[in-house]
Amino acid sequence: MTDGPTGDDRVVVALDVGGTGMKCALVRPDGSVLHAERHPTDAGRGPDAVVETVLAVAEGLADRARAAGSTPVACGVAVPGVVDEAAGVAVWSANVGFRDVPLRTLVGARLGLPAALGHDVRVGGIAEARLGAGRDARHVLFVAIGTGIAAAHVVAGSAAVGAHGAAGEIGHILVRPDGPRCGCGRPGCLEAVSSASAVARRYAELAGSAASAADVAGRAAAGEELAGRVWREAVEALADGLATGQALYDVDTMVIGGGLARAGGQLLDPLRAALRERMTFHREPRLVAAALGDEAGCLGAALLALDSLERR
Amino acid sequence: MTDGPTGDDRVVVALDVGGTGMKCALVRPDGSVLHAERHPTDAGRGPDAVVETVLAVAEGLADRARAAGSTPVACGVAVPGVVDEAAGVAVWSANVGFRDVPLRTLVGARLGLPAALGHDVRVGGIAEARLGAGRDARHVLFVAIGTGIAAAHVVAGSAAVGAHGAAGEIGHILVRPDGPRCGCGRPGCLEAVSSASAVARRYAELAGSAASAADVAGRAAAGEELAGRVWREAVEALADGLATGQALYDVDTMVIGGGLARAGGQLLDPLRAALRERMTFHREPRLVAAALGDEAGCLGAALLALDSLERR
Repeated sequence: MTDGPTGDDRVVVALDVGGTGMKCALVRPDGSVLHAERHPTDAGRGPDAVVETVLAVAEGLADRARAAGSTPVACGVAVPGVVDEAAGVAVWSANVGFRDVPLRTLVGARLGLPAALGHDVRVGGIAEARLGAGRDARHVLFVAIGTGIAAAHVVAGSAAVGAHGAAGEIGHILVRPDGPRCGCGRPGCLEAVSSASAVARRYAELAGSAASAADVAGRAAAGEELAGRVWREAVEALADGLATGQALYDVDTMVIGGGLARAGGQLLDPLRAALRERMTFHREPRLVAAALGDEAGCLGAALLALDSLERR
Repeated sequence: MTDGPTGDDRVVVALDVGGTGMKCALVRPDGSVLHAERHPTDAGRGPDAVVETVLAVAEGLADRARAAGSTPVACGVAVPGVVDEAAGVAVWSANVGFRDVPLRTLVGARLGLPAALGHDVRVGGIAEARLGAGRDARHVLFVAIGTGIAAAHVVAGSAAVGAHGAAGEIGHILVRPDGPRCGCGRPGCLEAVSSASAVARRYAELAGSAASAADVAGRAAAGEELAGRVWREAVEALADGLATGQALYDVDTMVIGGGLARAGGQLLDPLRAALRERMTFHREPRLVAAALGDEAGCLGAALLALDSLERR
């Protein structure tokens, strides 16, 4: 750590910028939250307007920290899509509208603070691994299951980024060669079978009426046969995907987050059983629900910023 | 590096212990080989006899180094199966007959030198990544395709080991849910479709006569329809497996080694094309043949031993 403010008065400005909203906070070095606020992203306004909102919110948070007697020491920002963390550039974030936005430089310049840019799922994984459901494990796979499916492989508190900022794309591994076509263009991706949107789509296809993944989970629990079948198909494919993740990564703990994980035991219990069936010579990982909810990304952005301070 | 011999006279004693034979060498710190020799493993004699041969061969190599005016500074040993590198224990090596053998301690005690124990494919990957076909890349996936299929994910010269010494088991990821049963007990593993033994088995099944994978490759190249079909099936499944590897690891370069890679362009050219088809939003990795042949494991054992010296 470089010279500068130490002790309890240091805080990090952290923002998790999603397609719909931004989760923002002032986070202390120990991961506790001094203040949190949320703002709409309003991505329809275009990337320049979104960037301006990010900068204004970050600046407002830094001012608020100072007003409260704290010292902002860094700023961390998380965005979805493809993120070049080394360069600090949001390469491509479809649902936010970013394309090659040098967010780290922009934020750093506006705040006059060191800044870090991270990928939302990767920093969420860092937060779950250090502060959340994976905090006792050294090798963690965080899997976020929502509209899409993505993962972060976190070892000793650091997430693997890959050669091009694209590691952990577990949503786009083949699980059903004869399965539905994925948004990415290939058939049978995990995301095309087991994401919340895939579950809803499959149910609508078979039932002829619309239902959310949460509805399907509820109807399956209530004993509706069709919903039960759709849910089982999704769980089986998910177990195949996690088994592949375990074969390649060999982790202690898998932390399941995202919207679909809100089904709790109804997802995790059959998923754990199906994963166990698939472990022939591998050690079975501990399978647990995420602990930090939708604040994981914001906390992780703060941790990434703190890490970047330590490396300066 | 600790105090001690420096410069050109230092060598590492390195052994790669396989089911059939042991590749052994004296390796200089720059990776060049001072002397190489091979011995039969004769695994049928039982694990104690194999361990004694390993120790005697290692001792002989250290003596030979001293006689040649070199200074042996460490010993590296590679074995197949499940290896606990941190503890230095060969946990389970089916084709060598090892079960919970503390090889690192045994070798270190016999030679009076620091020793390191590694997994054959992982250290092979380290060697290919640092000295072989991946030497210009930071993120490398080494995939060995022979009787089985296994991989090593090497970043900045270090191979990922996993939480239980079992990372990189790409042979046991699901690629064909309706495919043949794998030796591990599960249906449709990559190894059950695309390994050299799977290619030979599939051809024998369809043709009603035995042929090695190399035979199948040769007959496919000569235009035999059935052989061509078996080869294409194997290549397609392999491309699915590598695409999954790229989705999870995101590497610059994939290095293909093992017996099946001796088919050269006949494997790599269609494999590269099939992999390219599968890259929808990921960057396509460079796909190259391994450069070090069956010496990769021995060289990698030497590198692992050198690394362990640096960490002392």
